[in-house]
Amino acid sequence: MPFTYEHPRAALAVDCVIFGFDEGGLKVLLIRRGLEPFQGRWALPGGFVRMEETTDQAARRELREETGLDRPFLEQLYTFSDVDRDPRERVVSVAYFALVKLSDHRVRGASDAREAAWHPVEKTPPLAFDHKKILASATARLRGKVRYQPIGFELLPPRFTLPQLQHLYEAALERPLDKRNFRKKILSFGILVELPDKEENVSNRPAQLYRFDKKAYEEKVRAGWNFEV
Amino acid sequence: MPFTYEHPRAALAVDCVIFGFDEGGLKVLLIRRGLEPFQGRWALPGGFVRMEETTDQAARRELREETGLDRPFLEQLYTFSDVDRDPRERVVSVAYFALVKLSDHRVRGASDAREAAWHPVEKTPPLAFDHKKILASATARLRGKVRYQPIGFELLPPRFTLPQLQHLYEAALERPLDKRNFRKKILSFGILVELPDKEENVSNRPAQLYRFDKKAYEEKVRAGWNFEV
Repeated sequence: MPFTYEHPRAALAVDCVIFGFDEGGLKVLLIRRGLEPFQGRWALPGGFVRMEETTDQAARRELREETGLDRPFLEQLYTFSDVDRDPRERVVSVAYFALVKLSDHRVRGASDAREAAWHPVEKTPPLAFDHKKILASATARLRGKVRYQPIGFELLPPRFTLPQLQHLYEAALERPLDKRNFRKKILSFGILVELPDKEENVSNRPAQLYRFDKKAYEEKVRAGWNFEV
Repeated sequence: MPFTYEHPRAALAVDCVIFGFDEGGLKVLLIRRGLEPFQGRWALPGGFVRMEETTDQAARRELREETGLDRPFLEQLYTFSDVDRDPRERVVSVAYFALVKLSDHRVRGASDAREAAWHPVEKTPPLAFDHKKILASATARLRGKVRYQPIGFELLPPRFTLPQLQHLYEAALERPLDKRNFRKKILSFGILVELPDKEENVSNRPAQLYRFDKKAYEEKVRAGWNFEV
C-alpha cells in the first residue's frame, strides 16, 4: 500500500496520572526526570508509544517499567496537543488516569534509578512540560466520576471503615460532608458488606470494617439504578 | 535541540462525530469517501493533523472544509489507536464530537464534491475504518452528558417547544419519558424562558415556545446546583 501522508509527523506519547489515597489525603505519583529537558524536575510517568502497541498498551507498559504498578484501574483521560508543549519537538500526549490502592503497592523507581514518590495533589512541586495542566484535568475528571461511579473504592484498601470512605470523598470532592448523612446515604445503597471485624491498632474506638460489594453494585446498575453521592 | 525520538511514527488524524436532531430523531453527519481505502463508503468527516495546529484546531478546520460548519459545540471524545485501524499504515485518530442545530446549518459537501448527508444514528450504512466504533462511543458519551449537562439545547433551534425538548431527550436516552413528569421537572429547573409566541404552521394545537436561559443556568451551577434529567 502506498504511503499516503509523507509530511513531518508529531511524536506520540502517553502520560499517566496515578492517584492514590491515604490518611494524608489524595496523592499523585511523580517521577523525577533523569534527562533533559526538565532534568531533575518532577513529572508524570510516561513515554513514547511504539508502532506495534495501542496507547492503552503503552500506558500500561510505561507504568510497569517506571513504577512497578501492574493492572491498575486505568482510563484514558484526554489528548494534549499544544504545539509547543515539549521544547524538543512536537509531541502529542494521550493522558491516562489510574487509581491504585496505596496499601497494595510499593511503588519503586525505574530500573535506571529514577526516583518515584507520592505527592499531595494540592501541593505538587513544579512539574515538567504541561503536566500541571494534565494533573488539573485528571483531578477534575476524578471529582466528576466519584459522584456517579463507585470508582472511589479502587483507592481504598479491600477492607475499609466508613470514616475512611468519607475522608476519601471529602478529598476528592474538596468539601466536608456531614457524617450522619453520608453514612445513611452510602449504607442505603446496599453496595457495602459489613465485615465481622473492626479496625485494629487504633487509639480511638475501633470502627466497623466494610468491603465493596461489586456484584451487588453491578446488579443494581443493570436494573437501572444510578450511583450518586 | 536534538531530535530525541528517531523511530517510525504513526500519522495523527482527527475524526468528528457531528450530531444533529430533527423530527426524525438523532442524526449523524457522514461524508462519502472519494478516495481509497473505503472509496465510496460513508465515513466521519476528518483528516490529518498538521504540525502547526492542535487537534482541536484540526477538527475545526476539517469540519469547516468538509461540511461548511463553523464554530459548533465541539468536544474531544477519545483517542483511537488500534494498530490496524487504517489499512494503509498506522494512523492514530483523536475523535471529537459536535452538536449542531439542524435549523442553523445547510451542510454541504467539500469543494472536491464529496457528498455529505445526515443519517439516523440508529441506521447508519456500513462505515469506513473503525468509524462504527467511534460513533458508538460518541453516542454513549452524548447519552451520558445530556443527563448531567444541558448540552441538549445545542441541538435544538433557538426557540423550541417542550414536546421537541422531550423528543430530543427520548432520542438521546433511547427510552420514552412521561410527558407530565418531564414538563414538571424541566420547568422546575428555572432555566427555560417562556416566549410570547406559540409555534406556527402546525396542524395540531400549537405548543408554547421556549428558549434556554444560559445565564440562569450558569448562575445556578455556580451556586452548586446540578442539572439532572
